Amino acid sequence: MKAAIIGVTGYGGAELVRILHQHPEVSIHSFHSSSQQGNRVIESYPHLQSITAQVLEDIHIEKIGNEADFVFLATPSGVAANLVPQLMNQNVKVIDLSGDFRIKNREVYKKWYKKEAAEEHWLNEAVYGLTEWLDTDLKEAKLISNPGCYPTATLLGLAPLVKNKLIDEKSIIIDAKSGVSGAGRNVSPVTHFSETNENLKIYKVNEHQHIPEIEQVLSGWNPGVRAVTFSTHLIPMTRGIMATIYASASIDTNIDQLFDLYRETYEGCYFIRIREKGTFPSTKEVYGSNFCDISLAYDERTNRIMVVSVIDNLMKGAAGQAVQNMNMMLGLDEKTGLDFVPVYP
Amino acid sequence: MKAAIIGVTGYGGAELVRILHQHPEVSIHSFHSSSQQGNRVIESYPHLQSITAQVLEDIHIEKIGNEADFVFLATPSGVAANLVPQLMNQNVKVIDLSGDFRIKNREVYKKWYKKEAAEEHWLNEAVYGLTEWLDTDLKEAKLISNPGCYPTATLLGLAPLVKNKLIDEKSIIIDAKSGVSGAGRNVSPVTHFSETNENLKIYKVNEHQHIPEIEQVLSGWNPGVRAVTFSTHLIPMTRGIMATIYASASIDTNIDQLFDLYRETYEGCYFIRIREKGTFPSTKEVYGSNFCDISLAYDERTNRIMVVSVIDNLMKGAAGQAVQNMNMMLGLDEKTGLDFVPVYP
Amino acid sequence: MKAAIIGVTGYGGAELVRILHQHPEVSIHSFHSSSQQGNRVIESYPHLQSITAQVLEDIHIEKIGNEADFVFLATPSGVAANLVPQLMNQNVKVIDLSGDFRIKNREVYKKWYKKEAAEEHWLNEAVYGLTEWLDTDLKEAKLISNPGCYPTATLLGLAPLVKNKLIDEKSIIIDAKSGVSGAGRNVSPVTHFSETNENLKIYKVNEHQHIPEIEQVLSGWNPGVRAVTFSTHLIPMTRGIMATIYASASIDTNIDQLFDLYRETYEGCYFIRIREKGTFPSTKEVYGSNFCDISLAYDERTNRIMVVSVIDNLMKGAAGQAVQNMNMMLGLDEKTGLDFVPVYP
Amino acid sequence: MKAAIIGVTGYGGAELVRILHQHPEVSIHSFHSSSQQGNRVIESYPHLQSITAQVLEDIHIEKIGNEADFVFLATPSGVAANLVPQLMNQNVKVIDLSGDFRIKNREVYKKWYKKEAAEEHWLNEAVYGLTEWLDTDLKEAKLISNPGCYPTATLLGLAPLVKNKLIDEKSIIIDAKSGVSGAGRNVSPVTHFSETNENLKIYKVNEHQHIPEIEQVLSGWNPGVRAVTFSTHLIPMTRGIMATIYASASIDTNIDQLFDLYRETYEGCYFIRIREKGTFPSTKEVYGSNFCDISLAYDERTNRIMVVSVIDNLMKGAAGQAVQNMNMMLGLDEKTGLDFVPVYP
Repeated sequence: MKAAIIGVTGYGGAELVRILHQHPEVSIHSFHSSSQQGNRVIESYPHLQSITAQVLEDIHIEKIGNEADFVFLATPSGVAANLVPQLMNQNVKVIDLSGDFRIKNREVYKKWYKKEAAEEHWLNEAVYGLTEWLDTDLKEAKLISNPGCYPTATLLGLAPLVKNKLIDEKSIIIDAKSGVSGAGRNVSPVTHFSETNENLKIYKVNEHQHIPEIEQVLSGWNPGVRAVTFSTHLIPMTRGIMATIYASASIDTNIDQLFDLYRETYEGCYFIRIREKGTFPSTKEVYGSNFCDISLAYDERTNRIMVVSVIDNLMKGAAGQAVQNMNMMLGLDEKTGLDFVPVYP
Repeated sequence: MKAAIIGVTGYGGAELVRILHQHPEVSIHSFHSSSQQGNRVIESYPHLQSITAQVLEDIHIEKIGNEADFVFLATPSGVAANLVPQLMNQNVKVIDLSGDFRIKNREVYKKWYKKEAAEEHWLNEAVYGLTEWLDTDLKEAKLISNPGCYPTATLLGLAPLVKNKLIDEKSIIIDAKSGVSGAGRNVSPVTHFSETNENLKIYKVNEHQHIPEIEQVLSGWNPGVRAVTFSTHLIPMTRGIMATIYASASIDTNIDQLFDLYRETYEGCYFIRIREKGTFPSTKEVYGSNFCDISLAYDERTNRIMVVSVIDNLMKGAAGQAVQNMNMMLGLDEKTGLDFVPVYP
Repeated sequence: MKAAIIGVTGYGGAELVRILHQHPEVSIHSFHSSSQQGNRVIESYPHLQSITAQVLEDIHIEKIGNEADFVFLATPSGVAANLVPQLMNQNVKVIDLSGDFRIKNREVYKKWYKKEAAEEHWLNEAVYGLTEWLDTDLKEAKLISNPGCYPTATLLGLAPLVKNKLIDEKSIIIDAKSGVSGAGRNVSPVTHFSETNENLKIYKVNEHQHIPEIEQVLSGWNPGVRAVTFSTHLIPMTRGIMATIYASASIDTNIDQLFDLYRETYEGCYFIRIREKGTFPSTKEVYGSNFCDISLAYDERTNRIMVVSVIDNLMKGAAGQAVQNMNMMLGLDEKTGLDFVPVYP
Repeated sequence: MKAAIIGVTGYGGAELVRILHQHPEVSIHSFHSSSQQGNRVIESYPHLQSITAQVLEDIHIEKIGNEADFVFLATPSGVAANLVPQLMNQNVKVIDLSGDFRIKNREVYKKWYKKEAAEEHWLNEAVYGLTEWLDTDLKEAKLISNPGCYPTATLLGLAPLVKNKLIDEKSIIIDAKSGVSGAGRNVSPVTHFSETNENLKIYKVNEHQHIPEIEQVLSGWNPGVRAVTFSTHLIPMTRGIMATIYASASIDTNIDQLFDLYRETYEGCYFIRIREKGTFPSTKEVYGSNFCDISLAYDERTNRIMVVSVIDNLMKGAAGQAVQNMNMMLGLDEKTGLDFVPVYP
């Protein structure tokens, strides 16, 4: 199978190259860019010398449609909304890594993204690709909307509690922390090394565009969940997300029951690892891999459950989950070509 | 005035040397260590070459009592409980940076510290030195118990809300993050560079010894506060603490009222800086200084207040606040010799 | 084929697990440790949950000899010298990642390692496994001595110049820089996070045990090379080595000739990537991979050649090169199971 | 005395504010910017809240001349060349932190800086302010050209050897390493956090503009020194420079003689600390201070001397040395207001 990648000059695109390099069934047919056509990929990414000698091509939709079996879109928000209808007309399947097709309500998208939303028709067509919780068969999907990095860590951590109605729906607080690569490759004062190193920042307070994505999915699982508190911190490291999630138990529970629930829920999910009781995952323990590691605590004094969920934001939080979805779409085992052991230390 | 420092080979002790180097009224008379007597200070800390040529002395209580006006204890927990009665007998005032005299209830200390508590008599004598919220005149104090780093950031951030009963007492969640120097200078696998760099860990879940310290103070301010959720994360940086604090408003409020309250509460407190509305402090903005920077958000959707409070854990969280207390004890302006501008970037 | 690993609790051992997880021809039969037998591997390395459920076994030589086809030794210096004769008696092949069989002269070993050297017989038997410059067929080898991390980066960078006698033999200066994982997993004040982060240190000045290893190989290639200047710096990062190498040209040369020479020399060497003229590799560009990236500069003003050579110290500098040698030993393509794309960023 | 600062929005300017905050004789009268006039200083630097409430003013030369006793220029290269003649006409003394007045030969400046040089007249007027090696009395100076960060570390390390003709003039190699703040506050892909963290780069190979500055001073001290090899590496940390300097001894020497020479040479220089034989400085040991720490090794096997010299690039390498020169200019003790203890850890 042949894939085209549009937007390879960002970190999501580069990570797709790393993953697909050894995939047994899929190869990258072509790379496309709206701004750097004519440049070789290795001018953007010298680490890919000897991996690919390809040159970035223009985004010629018809040619892509004729030559590629499907397309990864690893572009900034606003771009996919525009490209997807054209690609759909060429009958080429699309896996979109951006936020453009995640929010079903166009007004909500506009409010949080400060941009016009995609067309209603294609929003309805898009399948939200939280792989472990798909509500449809990806083999039938034309357009997969890959979840955001924070929502992936958060939703995988919260699903068993919310779906089983074990927590007070108004009590959910997600204190999220991310490495700096989540901000992408475009330079900005916020991600300037000297401003970020040996520093800890909180940002986009009550304004992060992943809030409506999280709420949309949670309320789909349990309509009682309406608004959550979600805050984001910038950690002086490159990769990794940790979501520390707090919620009040709405039923009598204990830590053993909770671990049983999580183990049963995710049984058979290769990329979800429920950690041993009393231990908690750190972000480095999933570095460079597609794993989401989860652990739990229950504090009787406050009747509060805490869930800790970690991912590599560029893998399970972006390119890794995109390939996992691609595998599902192609009818392959979900871990085909994706079984990377975390790079530790 | 002459100070003696017991325990200079840890980070708190070294920071006292940095601060007092230019203090106009106090000089360091002697350094003491139980394990490295005979060594020069600069063998532990080469950066102090030309700052001090002194040699570490044994902990000879009587000699210290005769020669020094007061003593800083910068020793691991368990040591001060033992030394303080001896020093008190010599009529030498003590500022203790350890946790030994913070917890008034001996059973609680024993439970969280896994050690025998100090004697009741001296626990009662000790004044808890959260400088901005002292309940007694330090000029009269013989024994000052310097607060913990996390409690300092947390309590300064929560005081206006708790004292004025503006929040649901059961709703308090503190998601705390610290640089690695908070773990001290003793080596351990947890603070080994290769395990900590480019990594984010959660640790001591529901077991951190600062939990009872925070609860003791909060319930003293408002008996309705009994248990809080307090979690601690290790950030891959050396210095800095951020406490992200969540609580549900128990009254009608808005962001302007909250900022007014905080500004009024801390008016005249040089080391507390209420940031401008809409901006939030990062840890680097107080690096190397004694400031505690605070900002707030209020989310109408969830009726939740968020307080962000940052300090340098070795300064306002340890040696800086100790010197601030020393100044109060000596009847000096609180910022004498302590007016360091943050080192940025 | 079945491999046994002795010493999996260090970083070299853990990296072997990561690499061999997907190797098509070799699986790890057993893990052995002298100190942690009975523990599961994931107690040392939680990131390996779901990758291996094995338990660390005692170092039972006879059993290893009966069950395994060959053994990786990833033990501290001094251990292999002792284990190898026993393993050789069991006719099990060994790839040793330690320094014990690198130095042919026992007196030299003793001087630099401060330990007794291995037996002369086995020193002679050992093949120095700098894969691109092997002087013997590894298919015949019983005992492979894997090169040190610094020597690998340095020798691959210097080989074309030294072998072709293009430089003044007395002029070689290697200014080497390494990430902290090179110091291993044992805790020490030098590798304590707070002492290493945001810091740059020079260490083991004129005393590093890799000096005699480098000189032994260089003088084997060109007897005119006797002593080199080699210094080592500790960089506040986890992985990566850069060797910045300076030497005076002994012939008329220019930058194009030098690049031609390097490209020809390493043609067909998959893991050596000569970078494009005018660009220089950074360590992150080989992170997590087995590549050695090299570039060059020539300064007419000083008649000096500069070579820049980077590797991942745990991959090409340790476990990666060990597997590359294993592949050669087994008659496989050198990159079998080893074709990792660098993890960037 | 009243100082004006032009260019406070860069790191050099911010550091001047930190230093002068407690200076007993000098206060900052006004801040000036060509691009951000009307903004408050704390909008650029929130860490200065409560330190300064001033607003950035336009660069109104006449007003500055009337109101300020002298001016610090902390502007990018090219700006001072233009401003200095105007300021000189107002009879206001200037300390320039940029490179514009360092290179005496206008052609050389143009070649390395790719810009037009300053006027010959003012180049001749400018005094090169390497404080410990001034060749004129700063009390008479109108225009002080503050040295570059790399030249400061390098020249202080080499001075005793070059001035006393102890080394082969052609053998000098400086392998320099710097934290990222040396690249300033302007964003660029090179200093983007995700590209720089956990990475080690070499840059501007044989093209760094500090090469002619170093050669100019060395050849002034010893005309035999013509060209040196000088390379620069970007270390994943914010502050600190280490120059590792190699040169061949031209006379019989030994390590004790060398230490004696350095100690005698720098006797009475408060900010130069010759470390104890056998120990070497790390950059963190001068962090936030104006010290330059130096140590030496001599290797008999290669007859090579190695000098290790470290500074904080924003202090002794920029703002600190500027204030040291200011003190000399004003006839004050050189360490007035500048006696900061290094911030460690």
